[in-house]
Amino acid sequence: MTYRIGIDLGGTKIIGAIFDEKHKKLASIKKNTKGFQGPEVTIKRIVDLIYSLLKTSHLSVKSISSIGFGVPSSVDHLSGKMLTAPNLGWKDVNLKVAIEKEFGIFTYVENDVNAGTYGEYVMTLNKKYEHVVGIFFGTGIGGGLIINGQLFHGARGMAGEIGHMVLKPNGLLCGCGNKGCFETVASKSGLLHQMKLDSKKKGNQFLKKVVKKEDALVVKSSDLKKALELGDPYITKQVAKMARYMGLGIANIINILNPQAVILGGGVMEGLKDYLWPALLKNLNKNAFPGSLETVEIRVCELGDDAVMIGASLLAEVYRG
Amino acid sequence: MTYRIGIDLGGTKIIGAIFDEKHKKLASIKKNTKGFQGPEVTIKRIVDLIYSLLKTSHLSVKSISSIGFGVPSSVDHLSGKMLTAPNLGWKDVNLKVAIEKEFGIFTYVENDVNAGTYGEYVMTLNKKYEHVVGIFFGTGIGGGLIINGQLFHGARGMAGEIGHMVLKPNGLLCGCGNKGCFETVASKSGLLHQMKLDSKKKGNQFLKKVVKKEDALVVKSSDLKKALELGDPYITKQVAKMARYMGLGIANIINILNPQAVILGGGVMEGLKDYLWPALLKNLNKNAFPGSLETVEIRVCELGDDAVMIGASLLAEVYRG
Repeated sequence: MTYRIGIDLGGTKIIGAIFDEKHKKLASIKKNTKGFQGPEVTIKRIVDLIYSLLKTSHLSVKSISSIGFGVPSSVDHLSGKMLTAPNLGWKDVNLKVAIEKEFGIFTYVENDVNAGTYGEYVMTLNKKYEHVVGIFFGTGIGGGLIINGQLFHGARGMAGEIGHMVLKPNGLLCGCGNKGCFETVASKSGLLHQMKLDSKKKGNQFLKKVVKKEDALVVKSSDLKKALELGDPYITKQVAKMARYMGLGIANIINILNPQAVILGGGVMEGLKDYLWPALLKNLNKNAFPGSLETVEIRVCELGDDAVMIGASLLAEVYRG
Repeated sequence: MTYRIGIDLGGTKIIGAIFDEKHKKLASIKKNTKGFQGPEVTIKRIVDLIYSLLKTSHLSVKSISSIGFGVPSSVDHLSGKMLTAPNLGWKDVNLKVAIEKEFGIFTYVENDVNAGTYGEYVMTLNKKYEHVVGIFFGTGIGGGLIINGQLFHGARGMAGEIGHMVLKPNGLLCGCGNKGCFETVASKSGLLHQMKLDSKKKGNQFLKKVVKKEDALVVKSSDLKKALELGDPYITKQVAKMARYMGLGIANIINILNPQAVILGGGVMEGLKDYLWPALLKNLNKNAFPGSLETVEIRVCELGDDAVMIGASLLAEVYRG
C-alpha cells in the first residue's frame, strides 16, 4: 500500500490530508497560511504540516508516492512554479522544488480551481465523461476545464479564467482592472461591491444591519442566507440577479465548449443553492443552445472542502506517470 | 502519388478541388447548391462535381485516398451525419454514407468553420501551436477550436459556437432565438438588423442609398467598405461598434481558453480589416487577461475561399487513419 498527500494552500488556511489507494482520508490537518510573512514562512509551515500528517498516521516518508498542491495562483504546472498569487502576495515561487528538496517525494503544483474540478471529475463523476467544466462561485469565480479526460492548461496554465469573461460591457470595476467581468455580477466580491455602492441609499434594512462601517463591508454566504430566509427584499433581488448572470455565464461556456457536464461549486453556490437554482436554470435554458443543452449534465459539487486536496493528490499521481 | 478531394458545401455554392500530397490544387469546380430542392438533388450535383474533377485532372477513382466535406451544419463527425443545416433546410442527412456508396472512397464530413480553422492551422500556422481558436466573422459568426493539436468537437460536435456567446444581455434578437449574442453585435446579419431598425430614422445618407425597400435590406461587405471609404458617419460608427465587440468577444475566448493563437477570418474580417483593426485591438487589449494576452498570436486568415476545402481534405486524411 502506498499513500498520497494532498494540500489545499489557501489565502488564510492550509489544509493537508493523507489518502490511501482507495481514496480514504487517513488524517487531515489545518493551519494558518501566514502568506504575507513571505513564502519561506509558509513553506516552513507546510513542511511541518506534512511531518505532522506522517506522524499522526504512523507513516514513513518512503510510503508516500506523491504530494499534490492546489494553490491560489496561476501555475506553470510543468515546473511547479507559482506565477502570481494575489491573495498571498507571492510572485514566481517554486513550491515543487522546495518540497521535493525537503522530502525527496514527487511533488505537483496546480491551480486550486483546476485541482478541485479534477477532484470532482474523478471522485463524483467517476470520469464517466471526457469533457467537463467546473465553475466555482465564491469570493471570485474560478473555472477548470477537463478536455479529453485531462485537465486543460492552455498556453501557459491560464485556461479556465471564466470569471473574467466580460458579460456586462462597462459594468462594475473588477479586481482584475477590467469592467463587467462575470465575477462582478455573480460572485461575493461583486455583490459586496454593489452593496457598497447601494449602502449610500437610505432605507435598506439588511444593509443597515450588516454594514457597520462602509469601508469594512464583509458579508459571509451564511449572512446572505439568513437575509434570504428573512425575506430581505434587497438581498433577494440581488441574489436573483446573480443567479440570472450565473445562468447566462454557464450558458456561454456551454455554447463555446459543448461539454458533457458542468460542475458548480464554491461557497456561494453551495450555501445559497436553493435560492439561486430557479433563476439560474431559467436563464441557462434561455441562453444555451438547445443541441448542447440536451446533452449536458449540470450538477453541484459533492466533495466540499476536500475537492482541492483530493484533486491535487490525484493529479500528482497522473503527472508522476 | 495519391490525391485527395476537398469540398466546401455552402448555402448557395458548392466548391470542390483536388489536391496532391504537397497540397497543390490540381483542379477546382464551382456549382450552385440548390439545397432547397432537397438533399437528393444536391448530392447528385456533388457526385457530378466529383466526376468532373476527376475527368478534368485525368485521375481515376482509385487514385483518390479520401473525400472531405466542410458543410454549413452541425455534424456528427464520427457517423458523417449532418444534423441541422438551417441554410440548406436539411435535417439528419448522412452525406458520408451517400458519397462512400457512390465512390467507395473514405469520406469525412465536418462543420465548415471547423474545417476552415483546421485548414489555416495546418497550412498557414504549420501546426506550430497546440491550442488555436478560429473565429470567422461573416453573415454570422462561427468558431473552431484546436486543442492539443486536434479539432475539438465537444460532446456532440457543437463546440465552438462562439457566435452565440451572449455579450449584451437583452440586446437585439439573434437568428438562434436568443438575445444579445456575439453575432448580433459583430456580424453582418447583426449589422443589417441594426440598420433595419435605424432605417426608420431620417437623414441617414448611406441607408437612403442602400435601402431600397425596408424588407429587402441586403448589404455586402464591399458596400460597407465603400461607405467607409466615403466616410459615411453612420456606417463608420456602426463598424467601430462592431470592432469593439469583436475585441471584447475575442478577449473572452482568450480568457477562457488561453490559446497560443487566434485566427480571424470571414468576409467581414477580410473585407474590412483595416477599418476594424484599431478599435478591435484596443478593446482586445483592454479586456484580455495580460498573462494570456502576452502569449497569444492574433492573425488574419490567409487561405480565403480555399480554407474550408483544404481543411476538410486534411481532416479526411486524419480520420482515414
